[in-house]
Amino acid sequence: MIIELKESAKASASDLAEKVKAFHINYQDKAYLITGSALKEVPQDLEAHAANFWIFANDIQLASKKFQQEKRSVNFGNVTIGGKSNHTILIGGPCSVESEEQLRGAAELLVGMGLSTLRGGAYKPRTSPYSFQGMGLEGLQLLAKMRQDYGLNVITEARDATHIAQIIEHTDIIQVGAKAMYDQGILRACAKTQKPVLIKRGFGTTLQEFVQAAEFVLSGGNPNVVLCERGIRTFETGTRFTLDLCGVAWLQEHTNLPIILDPSHAMGYAYGVNPLARACVAMGIDGLLIEAHPNPKVAKSDASQQLDYPAFKQLHADIQKVAQSVGYKIV
Amino acid sequence: MIIELKESAKASASDLAEKVKAFHINYQDKAYLITGSALKEVPQDLEAHAANFWIFANDIQLASKKFQQEKRSVNFGNVTIGGKSNHTILIGGPCSVESEEQLRGAAELLVGMGLSTLRGGAYKPRTSPYSFQGMGLEGLQLLAKMRQDYGLNVITEARDATHIAQIIEHTDIIQVGAKAMYDQGILRACAKTQKPVLIKRGFGTTLQEFVQAAEFVLSGGNPNVVLCERGIRTFETGTRFTLDLCGVAWLQEHTNLPIILDPSHAMGYAYGVNPLARACVAMGIDGLLIEAHPNPKVAKSDASQQLDYPAFKQLHADIQKVAQSVGYKIV
Amino acid sequence: MIIELKESAKASASDLAEKVKAFHINYQDKAYLITGSALKEVPQDLEAHAANFWIFANDIQLASKKFQQEKRSVNFGNVTIGGKSNHTILIGGPCSVESEEQLRGAAELLVGMGLSTLRGGAYKPRTSPYSFQGMGLEGLQLLAKMRQDYGLNVITEARDATHIAQIIEHTDIIQVGAKAMYDQGILRACAKTQKPVLIKRGFGTTLQEFVQAAEFVLSGGNPNVVLCERGIRTFETGTRFTLDLCGVAWLQEHTNLPIILDPSHAMGYAYGVNPLARACVAMGIDGLLIEAHPNPKVAKSDASQQLDYPAFKQLHADIQKVAQSVGYKIV
Amino acid sequence: MIIELKESAKASASDLAEKVKAFHINYQDKAYLITGSALKEVPQDLEAHAANFWIFANDIQLASKKFQQEKRSVNFGNVTIGGKSNHTILIGGPCSVESEEQLRGAAELLVGMGLSTLRGGAYKPRTSPYSFQGMGLEGLQLLAKMRQDYGLNVITEARDATHIAQIIEHTDIIQVGAKAMYDQGILRACAKTQKPVLIKRGFGTTLQEFVQAAEFVLSGGNPNVVLCERGIRTFETGTRFTLDLCGVAWLQEHTNLPIILDPSHAMGYAYGVNPLARACVAMGIDGLLIEAHPNPKVAKSDASQQLDYPAFKQLHADIQKVAQSVGYKIV
Repeated sequence: MIIELKESAKASASDLAEKVKAFHINYQDKAYLITGSALKEVPQDLEAHAANFWIFANDIQLASKKFQQEKRSVNFGNVTIGGKSNHTILIGGPCSVESEEQLRGAAELLVGMGLSTLRGGAYKPRTSPYSFQGMGLEGLQLLAKMRQDYGLNVITEARDATHIAQIIEHTDIIQVGAKAMYDQGILRACAKTQKPVLIKRGFGTTLQEFVQAAEFVLSGGNPNVVLCERGIRTFETGTRFTLDLCGVAWLQEHTNLPIILDPSHAMGYAYGVNPLARACVAMGIDGLLIEAHPNPKVAKSDASQQLDYPAFKQLHADIQKVAQSVGYKIV
Repeated sequence: MIIELKESAKASASDLAEKVKAFHINYQDKAYLITGSALKEVPQDLEAHAANFWIFANDIQLASKKFQQEKRSVNFGNVTIGGKSNHTILIGGPCSVESEEQLRGAAELLVGMGLSTLRGGAYKPRTSPYSFQGMGLEGLQLLAKMRQDYGLNVITEARDATHIAQIIEHTDIIQVGAKAMYDQGILRACAKTQKPVLIKRGFGTTLQEFVQAAEFVLSGGNPNVVLCERGIRTFETGTRFTLDLCGVAWLQEHTNLPIILDPSHAMGYAYGVNPLARACVAMGIDGLLIEAHPNPKVAKSDASQQLDYPAFKQLHADIQKVAQSVGYKIV
Repeated sequence: MIIELKESAKASASDLAEKVKAFHINYQDKAYLITGSALKEVPQDLEAHAANFWIFANDIQLASKKFQQEKRSVNFGNVTIGGKSNHTILIGGPCSVESEEQLRGAAELLVGMGLSTLRGGAYKPRTSPYSFQGMGLEGLQLLAKMRQDYGLNVITEARDATHIAQIIEHTDIIQVGAKAMYDQGILRACAKTQKPVLIKRGFGTTLQEFVQAAEFVLSGGNPNVVLCERGIRTFETGTRFTLDLCGVAWLQEHTNLPIILDPSHAMGYAYGVNPLARACVAMGIDGLLIEAHPNPKVAKSDASQQLDYPAFKQLHADIQKVAQSVGYKIV
Repeated sequence: MIIELKESAKASASDLAEKVKAFHINYQDKAYLITGSALKEVPQDLEAHAANFWIFANDIQLASKKFQQEKRSVNFGNVTIGGKSNHTILIGGPCSVESEEQLRGAAELLVGMGLSTLRGGAYKPRTSPYSFQGMGLEGLQLLAKMRQDYGLNVITEARDATHIAQIIEHTDIIQVGAKAMYDQGILRACAKTQKPVLIKRGFGTTLQEFVQAAEFVLSGGNPNVVLCERGIRTFETGTRFTLDLCGVAWLQEHTNLPIILDPSHAMGYAYGVNPLARACVAMGIDGLLIEAHPNPKVAKSDASQQLDYPAFKQLHADIQKVAQSVGYKIV
C-alpha cells in the first residue's frame, strides 16, 4: 500500500513510517509511506494523516501505472529519456574496457554520430574464474577520463557489492547486471544515491521479480530507475538467450519505468543485432544498449556479438527510420 | 546431402533415388536427390550423374541458405510473399469460426481494408475435451463459402491426420498448428500437394526441429513452405508465451523460407498485440497472423487476445508506417 | 462437473448426456455424465436423476483424486499395476525394433529375468525426415510375434493417427508418445478401446495439460490410462531432458492415475539411467520404461542412452532393493 | 590446465604463477598452478618444474573427475561427508530464524534425532523489499548460540558481499544461495577461508556455470566445496521449481564434489518433500537440506513447503530405509 501524507504530516513522516514499519520517501514534493501490498486498509495510526492511498494486488507498487500513470522521466546527464520525451537513447561501446586506445576510439565514434552515452565493462561478472575478469578500477578510471575528455555520459556495471561505491562515484548511470539484480548490497546502495540506475533483468527472472528489484531502489528513495530487458534463458540454444518482447509489452502496460533493451546479449551473434534493434525501436522504447568493438574478432569478451563500427553506423541509420515511423527520435 | 542430377539423368531419377535410399524431388526444372546430412561424399552410383552437390552440417538442407541463398517465393492465391516481393501479408480473422454471421463480418472487414487472406479455426486443438472443439467440417465449409463470396484466400489448421484431406481440399493455405507440427501424418500429406503450407513452431520446439519439420514437406515434393513463429513456452507466465524474435533472426540468417509471425498467441493479451506486431514488421518479415473478433469478450476461444475491429484497423494503420520504414509493404 | 446418475436413469443416460451436452461413460457399474468444469451446479434437467455429483476447479475431473481417491488399477495383460498392488513394473526393450534377431534377444532377456512386458518402437516419431523412421508395420508384426512366442505383453508407440488402428490391434498397451499426446485423432481412438493406454508427457507440456490429455481418453469411455513422465525441455543441455520428479509428486497428490517413468529419454546418457531409475522407484511409482539394446553403439536410434544387457540386469538388481525399502515389488 | 609442480618448485610456486598468470593452490601436500582451459600445452617457463599436468575441454578443472577421480571428503564439524564415507547428512531447521524459542525447538528436535547440523536463514534474499528480510546479525548470533548450547554445526546463507565476513565468522558451513552464486564478492571471500562452502545452483544456472562457481572457490585456495541442487526454473508452475536429478547424475559423473539436495525449495509444497527426499537418497547423495518449522502455517517465509516436526521425523525414518538399500547411512 502507498499512502500519501498530508502536507501537515510531512515533518513527522519518518516517525510515522517507523510506527507502521513502512518505507518513507519524498517524491515530487510529496511524502509517501509504503508498506507491503498485503496491507489493504490504511492503518489507524495514519488515518488522520493520509491525503491519498493506493492498494495493490502485489508488491509492484511505486513502479506501477496504478500509482503513476505517466512514464517516469529520467535524466541521463544532458539527455532525458522517458516521460513525454519520445527519445530512444542509443548507448554504444565495447563489452569490456580493454585499453585507453580502444575506449577513445569508441568515444570518438559516438561523438561523431552525435550520441551521448558510452558503455564499457570494468568489473566483468564472468562465470569462470579463468576468463578475463575486466580491468577493474583502472577500467573505471578510463571511463571517467572519456567523460571528461568528450563530455559523454558513461555507464558501467557493478559486479558485486564490494565495489559499488566506486561504480557510483565514477559513472553517470549505474548498471546493475543480470547476475547481480537480486544483490541487495548493490540495490540498497543504489537507493541512497540519486544517480539513475539501469537494472538488467536476470536471465532466469520473472517480470514480477524484475520490477520488484526496482522497488528496492524506489522504496529506498531513488526514483530514477530504468529497466533493461536483455534476454531470458530458454530451451532454445541456437541463439544465446531469448529477447522477451512480450515481456516488454507487459512492462509498458503495467509499469511507469522507462525501458531500455539490449539485443546484443540476447542474440549473442552480430548478424541478429540490427534486425532485433529495429524490432525493439518499433515498440516505442526508451533506449538501446549495443555492444560495438573496433575489431570484434579479437575482443576479450563477447567476441561473437559485438558490432564493428561500420555495422554500428548502419544500425544507427536503420533505427532512425523505424523510430520516426513510431514517433520517436534516436538520441 | 543434396545432389542435383544432370539433365541426362532426370528420366532415371527415381530409380537412382531408390538405389541410394534418397528422396527425389523436382524443383525449378531440375531434379534433386536428398539423403541424410551424415553423407558427406557423393555415392559412387551417382558420380556419373551428379551436376552439382551440397554438403550440410545437419539435416537442414533444402531449407538452408547454403542450398538456395534467395528467400523462396510462395503464392498465397493472388498474393505473393517472400522472394523479392518485400510484401508483409496481414492475415486476419477470428480464432474459431463460430457462425456464418461472425465469419462474414470478418471477411467484410478484410475486404474493406484491401486485405486478401482470412483465417479461422474449424478443428480446434484444445487441450481439454471439455472446451469448445470447433465447428469441424461445418466451419471449413463456411470458410470455403467466404472464399467464394469475397474472393479471399482462406487458411485454417489441421488438428490431426484424420481430417487432413478435408483441410487440403477446402483451404488455400494449409496451417499445421503448433501442437501438430511433429505429426508426420499431416506433414507427409502436405508434401503431396502443391498448396502452400504454413508450419507453426511448437511451443517446446527448437529452431532446428522446426526447420526439420519443413524438410518433411520439402523433401516430399512440395516447395511451398512458410514458417510461423508463435511464441515458445518459458518460465515467464505474465504473458501467455514468449515470442522468439532472436529465433526469427536466426531463421532469416540460416533458411530460405518466408516467415510469418503470430503475436496474438504469443502475447495472449490484446494490449500487447499492436506493439509486438510493429516489432515483427520492423524485422522485414513476410507476414502476420492476427486474431480479430467482433466482440472478443464473448469469443468461444482465446477471448483475451483477440483484437476488436477498431483495434485491428489501428494495427493495420500502425504497421504500414513501420513496414515502409524498412522497405516493405503490407498486403 | 461429474454427475453420477441414479440406477433408474442409467437406461436414458445417453439421451440425458445429449440434452446437457455432456460425455457419458459407464465406470465400475455406474453411469456418469461429465461436463466442463465451468459448470458448478447440476443442470435442472438432471436434478431428478443425479445420485451424486462432484465440482472441480479445473478440467482435471475423472483423473482427479477428488472424484476417486484410490489409485486406479490397470491390467497390463497378466500383470496388474496401480490400485493396491504396490507393483513397479519394469518394461524393457530397444528404442527401435531393428530386426527379429534383436527383438528375440530382448524378449529372451526379459523372460530370463522374470519380467513381463517388452517395448520397441515401430513407427518412430523422428524430427528429421532423413533419420531412420522405424520398420513400421513390419516392426509391429515382429512385436506381435514375440508376444506369441514368449507370452510377453508388448507396448509400442503410435506416431500419428494414420496407423492408430494397427497399433491398437497389435499391442497390449498403447503408447501415446510425447510428440503425439495432443493428437486427438489418436486420443479419441484410444478412448474407444478398453486396452490400457500409456500417455507420455510432451516435453513442453504442463502437468495440467498432461492430465487433460488423459481426460480425453477417460471421458471417451476408456478408464485404463497410465501417465508417463519422460523429461521436460529446459534450458539445461548437459542432459537430454530434465526428469520432472516434482511433477511426479504433484501427479501422485492430485490424480488417481498410475505413473510410469522413463529415465532413459530424460537423461539421454546410459550412465545416468541406473541412479535415476533408483530415484524413481524410491518415490513409490507404478513402473519404469528402460531402453536396452544388445549393442547400444550400433543402435539405429537413441544410441547414447540405451543400456547394454549387463547394465540392464544390474539396474534390475539395484531397483529391487530400493523398491523393497518403500514397500514395492518389481514385476 | 592444471599443472602439478615438482617438489623442488614448491617454494617458488607463487612466482611461477605470476609469471604465467595462473592461480596457485596447495592441495593435499602438493602445489598446483591452474590456468584457463584454453591452454593446451605446458608453458615453456614451467616445463622444467612440472611433475604432472591435466588438459581440459572446458573450465571445469579442479572439480573434474579427470583431475581427481575420487569424490572429495569434506568435514562438517564432527561429521564427514563425501569421500568414502557413504554418509548422507540430513540438515534440518527453519527457513528463517524467527526467534530464540523457535530455533531452540529446532535444535532440540535435531539433537533428539541424533542429527548434527542446523540450518536457518538470517539474511533472507527476498525478491520484494516489502517482505520479511530476516533477523540479520541477530539471527546469526542466535545460530551461534545454538551451536554453543547444543554442539550442533550451523549453516546459514550469505545474501550479498556486505556481510560475508559475519557469515564466515558465525557459521560452520557457509551457504552461498541460489541468487548469490554468481557473486564474486562472496565467492572470493569463501576462497580465503578453509570452512566448507555449500554453493546452491541458481534457478537459471546451467550445470557448467554451477560447477564453474565452485572453481572460483577451489582455484582461490579452499578445497572444501559442496554443491547443492535446489530446483531450476522451468515452464512448469504446478510446483515451485523443478528438481533436476538428471543434473545430479551429470554432476556425479563429471565432478569430484559432494552433492547435497534441497527438495523443499524445489517442490514448494510440503506434500512432495518426503517422496522427493526418498528419490534423492536413492541416488547415493551426500546430504539433504530440509526445511522444518514447529508450525508452518505461521512461518514468516516459505510457509507452504516447511515440514512440521512429526513430518520431519517421518521423513527421517523413511529415508533411512532407502539409504540402507543403496549402501548409505543417514547422519
